[in-house]
Amino acid sequence: MKNKLSLAIAGLGTVGAGTLQLLETHRDLLSARCGRAIEVVAVSARDRSRDRGVSLEGYKWFDDPVDMARDCGADVVVELIGGSEGPARDVCDAAIAAGRHVVTANKALVALHGSDLAARAEAATVTLAFEAAVAGGIPVIKALREGLAGNGVSSLHGILNGTCNYILTTMRETGRPFEDVLAEAQTLGYAEADPSFDIDGVDAAHKLAILTSVAFGCDVDFDGVHIEGIRHVAAEDIAYATELGYRIKLLGITERTKAGVLQRVYPAMVPLGAPIAAVEGVYNGVVAEGDFVGTTMFEGRGAGAGPTASAVVADVVDIALGRMTPTFGIPVEMLSRTPSLSLNERVGLYYIRLMVQDTTGVFADIATTLRDANISIESAIQRARSDSGFVPVVLTTHETQEAAIQEALSSLDRLESVAETPRMIRIESM
Amino acid sequence: MKNKLSLAIAGLGTVGAGTLQLLETHRDLLSARCGRAIEVVAVSARDRSRDRGVSLEGYKWFDDPVDMARDCGADVVVELIGGSEGPARDVCDAAIAAGRHVVTANKALVALHGSDLAARAEAATVTLAFEAAVAGGIPVIKALREGLAGNGVSSLHGILNGTCNYILTTMRETGRPFEDVLAEAQTLGYAEADPSFDIDGVDAAHKLAILTSVAFGCDVDFDGVHIEGIRHVAAEDIAYATELGYRIKLLGITERTKAGVLQRVYPAMVPLGAPIAAVEGVYNGVVAEGDFVGTTMFEGRGAGAGPTASAVVADVVDIALGRMTPTFGIPVEMLSRTPSLSLNERVGLYYIRLMVQDTTGVFADIATTLRDANISIESAIQRARSDSGFVPVVLTTHETQEAAIQEALSSLDRLESVAETPRMIRIESM
Repeated sequence: MKNKLSLAIAGLGTVGAGTLQLLETHRDLLSARCGRAIEVVAVSARDRSRDRGVSLEGYKWFDDPVDMARDCGADVVVELIGGSEGPARDVCDAAIAAGRHVVTANKALVALHGSDLAARAEAATVTLAFEAAVAGGIPVIKALREGLAGNGVSSLHGILNGTCNYILTTMRETGRPFEDVLAEAQTLGYAEADPSFDIDGVDAAHKLAILTSVAFGCDVDFDGVHIEGIRHVAAEDIAYATELGYRIKLLGITERTKAGVLQRVYPAMVPLGAPIAAVEGVYNGVVAEGDFVGTTMFEGRGAGAGPTASAVVADVVDIALGRMTPTFGIPVEMLSRTPSLSLNERVGLYYIRLMVQDTTGVFADIATTLRDANISIESAIQRARSDSGFVPVVLTTHETQEAAIQEALSSLDRLESVAETPRMIRIESM
Repeated sequence: MKNKLSLAIAGLGTVGAGTLQLLETHRDLLSARCGRAIEVVAVSARDRSRDRGVSLEGYKWFDDPVDMARDCGADVVVELIGGSEGPARDVCDAAIAAGRHVVTANKALVALHGSDLAARAEAATVTLAFEAAVAGGIPVIKALREGLAGNGVSSLHGILNGTCNYILTTMRETGRPFEDVLAEAQTLGYAEADPSFDIDGVDAAHKLAILTSVAFGCDVDFDGVHIEGIRHVAAEDIAYATELGYRIKLLGITERTKAGVLQRVYPAMVPLGAPIAAVEGVYNGVVAEGDFVGTTMFEGRGAGAGPTASAVVADVVDIALGRMTPTFGIPVEMLSRTPSLSLNERVGLYYIRLMVQDTTGVFADIATTLRDANISIESAIQRARSDSGFVPVVLTTHETQEAAIQEALSSLDRLESVAETPRMIRIESM
């Protein structure tokens, strides 16, 4: 049996404690799988005395995680602090500089500094691994980078944020409004006290930028992701989606065209029969289209101590067995600088919901506005008259360019008979 | 850049031709991903002159694949002949003896001789890789063996045969009987002229035996798999399943208990909301339960030239990058000899369909028979009277042991009022 592989763990929150617990639980199994022992030698966190449900005895303690990354002597530094800057980034920099492999669950860090970190890891011939950064326990980085290595991947879409998927699933199942379900998710621990990173789509966008790089072999370009969250998805929209044969999901979508890469995160309507529509609750799912393999889907828990620890340890096992792969699938110098396209390039179907005055001729005004923007209507639902004097009108369009829709929405908003800001949700055929 | 990796391909049917095509199409991409060129140097097949849509120019031709495996000089032999004995087995034996890595898509070979082949590959320090043998293009061997390496897997189930899934899906969608849909599947090329390997569950059982070994780290034990196919699934059963909130799927299921491993392939009713229920048509899906990761699912095309070539090449890329993993996840000498349990150990729910005489007291006879076998009824559907004098009775049971059900089915069959052999389908809660 080879020498043991030694680890230093920076950050002992839920995931750090879960990782320690996994390594303890499966000590023998991991030795058998790796042909060598995996041993934690050092840890660092903000508070040494906090009860984490796991013993820290036998691990060298560091108050400063950067000191640990530099001086611990371990083969691998596991970074579980989080955040794209500050100590998390410094820990990874210091570990690579000291010639240690880095395993991280930090999506923000990899999304914002991935190409740079990968270049330095490559120069130092150490591994930079981040399976846990995307879709929690689902081994999707491994699947894309290794399992589908024989394919050109043309597009990929996924449910990358369990909080949003839980909220949208619960809204549909109960008919309750967004704020209500969000508050419940916070109580249940599925949403943070400050939920904006999740519900505004930033977390999903971090993960999408990483997936884009792995799938297409291009530089990570988080700034190129168009991002919209789920705050504006109303209970009515979810009910109409069901009526029209769709589910609303917060999707991350990335597509490669001749002109570049189109990356976006937004709530989208997907057909009930699409594989991704069946991914419900806190689950994540990623669907990739490969030119030889066809459609593949990977589904599982996207967050939580156990799933994330599972992904962290998978990366550790790769290192223990000496299984090396270029960070984003090909050497950094070969990553393409493919331009990120504007969402205006999108061509697809759209759902529009208006609240209009319940008077004769209103529908003609709407139809004329859309015709003037060259948008053709595929279906329309107009509800019976109401006492309030306002009625909802729901439209879906044929294939239309994003720019035309945006122009039409402005025009509709200016119509006197339109009472509220028009709501639009993109329909993805999948 | 390192030396090129050279391949010799034995068998140029659909998958062999697809593999050549993939290697040609993605020559540059694969070089970038592997840091070295992948080059086919030799091929062997039964008929040299057949038009396969790919040129064989530049490859050394061997009439005898075993000669090729021994003398080709290649780093890797790709075995795509098929069959558990004969040339396929001889090719793998010869390649390992000559110190060449082996990549195979041959589920029968690995299911019947996997432990033995793995022991010899390990002794020769070459890779024996078989991603393409299970679930086509889905990288499920990699996912289980590497992606979930941090988990103890307790159970696994999957749709492992696309032909059966296509037939069952089409029967449900159209209400047509089995023979009819099978004939259509044969016309469409989804089923073989002799379809018995697929529809009698043998193909799925080969794959299940392999998955069991990878998931649990035990010897491959194909003989330990209980196998039933889908010939006896009637259109009525599918309609009743829908009424009861289930889908009927040919499932491979493997479970580890303290006493051993319970492996079985049979048509089962799964709840509509279960992830596996959404895997339709020719698609395959595998659901694994890990103690840290929770439930994960992997879905994609289970057969065909492109998906299978994708899996073959993924294995080749692993070899090109020097990524080695013990064949079944741990060294062969550490694989456990876990006993395979009899299906009589199964405890679960059951669906029973009877055709009975339409006379007073029949239902009491049935209920008494079940009570005597200690089986309690969960629901019963009895249809209105018919002109034929016979009516169907459909029952579902509470938790019951397989042995008790088998006894009860014999007793029911002996009742004079029961007109046809009772039909039983197991219900899996998932």
